[in-house]
Amino acid sequence: MAETARAPLATAGITHQRVVFPEGLALDCGVVLRPLVVAYRTYGRLNDAKSNAILICHALTGDQYVAETHPVTGKPGWWTSMVGPGLPVDTDRFFVICANVLGGCMGSSGPREEMTDAEGRPQGRPWGMQFPPVTIRDMVRAQAKLLDRLGVPKLFSVIGGSMGGMQVLEWAALHPDRVFSAIPIATATHHSAQNIAFHEIGRQAINADPDFHGGEYWKHGVVPARGLAVARMTAHITYLSEEALTRKFGRRLRTGPMLTFSNDLFEVESYLQHQGSSFVQRFDANSYLSITRAMDYFDLAAEHGGSVAAAFRNTPVRFCVISFSSDWLFPTAMSREIVRALNAVAANVSFVEITSDKGHDAFLLDEPDLFRTVSGFLAGAAERWR
Amino acid sequence: MAETARAPLATAGITHQRVVFPEGLALDCGVVLRPLVVAYRTYGRLNDAKSNAILICHALTGDQYVAETHPVTGKPGWWTSMVGPGLPVDTDRFFVICANVLGGCMGSSGPREEMTDAEGRPQGRPWGMQFPPVTIRDMVRAQAKLLDRLGVPKLFSVIGGSMGGMQVLEWAALHPDRVFSAIPIATATHHSAQNIAFHEIGRQAINADPDFHGGEYWKHGVVPARGLAVARMTAHITYLSEEALTRKFGRRLRTGPMLTFSNDLFEVESYLQHQGSSFVQRFDANSYLSITRAMDYFDLAAEHGGSVAAAFRNTPVRFCVISFSSDWLFPTAMSREIVRALNAVAANVSFVEITSDKGHDAFLLDEPDLFRTVSGFLAGAAERWR
Repeated sequence: MAETARAPLATAGITHQRVVFPEGLALDCGVVLRPLVVAYRTYGRLNDAKSNAILICHALTGDQYVAETHPVTGKPGWWTSMVGPGLPVDTDRFFVICANVLGGCMGSSGPREEMTDAEGRPQGRPWGMQFPPVTIRDMVRAQAKLLDRLGVPKLFSVIGGSMGGMQVLEWAALHPDRVFSAIPIATATHHSAQNIAFHEIGRQAINADPDFHGGEYWKHGVVPARGLAVARMTAHITYLSEEALTRKFGRRLRTGPMLTFSNDLFEVESYLQHQGSSFVQRFDANSYLSITRAMDYFDLAAEHGGSVAAAFRNTPVRFCVISFSSDWLFPTAMSREIVRALNAVAANVSFVEITSDKGHDAFLLDEPDLFRTVSGFLAGAAERWR
Repeated sequence: MAETARAPLATAGITHQRVVFPEGLALDCGVVLRPLVVAYRTYGRLNDAKSNAILICHALTGDQYVAETHPVTGKPGWWTSMVGPGLPVDTDRFFVICANVLGGCMGSSGPREEMTDAEGRPQGRPWGMQFPPVTIRDMVRAQAKLLDRLGVPKLFSVIGGSMGGMQVLEWAALHPDRVFSAIPIATATHHSAQNIAFHEIGRQAINADPDFHGGEYWKHGVVPARGLAVARMTAHITYLSEEALTRKFGRRLRTGPMLTFSNDLFEVESYLQHQGSSFVQRFDANSYLSITRAMDYFDLAAEHGGSVAAAFRNTPVRFCVISFSSDWLFPTAMSREIVRALNAVAANVSFVEITSDKGHDAFLLDEPDLFRTVSGFLAGAAERWR
């Protein structure tokens, strides 16, 4: 990874499709972020009745490039198995929108963008760690402004996994009138102590990297690649089940005989090193800090007097809650908490635990049961939509 | 942690009780480590029949100071609940021995000690990363030499948890004639892909610390405190169950109101920071690398033609295998593997899964069921000992 530590950001020079809101956005922390910029991508066409819009909410390290080649990595979009022509989220039928989250690093307002003062005047430097703290609710508010601009009064559905699922829950809680159906996948109403702890390792690793320079690494023409790579490695392990990790890497030595410790890495090690190293090419460390904080502070119950059920009282939203049996980061028990709260307010909810041994990452992978569940739920919802 | 980064090693100047073996030890890697130094502590007295010796094997970050004040930290020994007068491992009855493992940093041969050449001549610098790779079996061989020196032909029992348990299994496999009974606790016959991955995060974090200087940090008067702290944090999370983490820290904010992100840490974060920071005062980074490698390479089946059972064929050793229900690092399934292998060779084995919500760390904590199991097993074994 030493080479990447001083490599220029691969994202430099890429222009993202985006909307600028000069009036800005009032954040939960009290700051008015001015202007607000929301980068986004759409797929398919909004119909005349404006009844076919689906918002996809991305996870921690995702972005708006859901179903097309990623402009930085040149790899396929992150959900090309789910979103596209003829797929469960069928872009021949639906108008699919995905926005880069607030605090992200792919064009939306975030630590990498140019800092502004209270009147929105540019300050000639990136925000870095001066970027105001944002919440999942702030992310949803920014997306709502984007929908206004795109002329979408109400979503047929809002779908997302992991942190995307947190946004789905927040959408249903904050704008029940603008959401017909919601599919929170592999998510929770709050981050557990263990989840927070794993994030904290990543944050500490970034802070410990001398190339971090207190978040002002751009001044030095570097990125805290080593710290960010350790953060990514940690997260990546939590995304895989023990079975998936063993199946992929087991204990096969990468090369040669045992016991020349410095060269013979277990395969899992070289894989994790590769993962960490490719990640730093596309992701901003300050964004990682900002977004992990937003996840850690997410607490739907706390936002509603200590009760998740209160967040959904009288909700007209139809829910399809999905979990994966081998997900230990957002285990099925956390999905059941959501379902119990929805049941407590007599909401319309179906719940599916999908048997998979792929861990949390299953929501991004080729899981036929997931595709069947999503397309079936959307088909059922479409019959009810007026 | 910034202050500790440049603090001198707190262990400087401490003299450990140790034995020097000028003839050295032939390691699994082919190197003869010359001399071999084994630092150790004993408690109680060896009886005339030499039938009351118990060897305690310590875990990754443990040491020989089992049942007395630690000379570096000033805190109580790491197993004062288990080992002492009137306790399950009763020092009024037993002669208890514990040696710092090979590769450790409390006086035994390891990366922190002075490097020697093939003839055992000191080279005027610490080993650092030049210290030859060691295995769990090498650790056991070093302990066997210590027992020879102490005049202990056969152990009444060998007891250890986690990596200590790996040594217990290796003792029974390597020297079945010198072990009357064995208590492997919260351990496994090999490290899983997930366990290796978590270790790799720690190693990467240490490598990424600029104060690591390729392992030659002593030249610069520093220690890679930040990397070592991240490594410790990662490990620490794996030692606790989700329940234990939540109970201890939950989501209570340490101070003040929400959303001043840089100051308001979740309690779990400040705790992990403290853990990481105090650890770097007493532990050597190169030792951490060396010992985690030894754990990752441990594979009892691979040492015996792919079969754990083969390691214990015709074993006369009496086993008491112990696991904890909430241990997700060395889950009960791993202990069952040990038990199945022992059953397959008709060994004398009892197995206890202790119900605990404290995770892997339970073996170090106040767990009455653990104490009852160990004292009961030792009492039964004592009746059979001749």
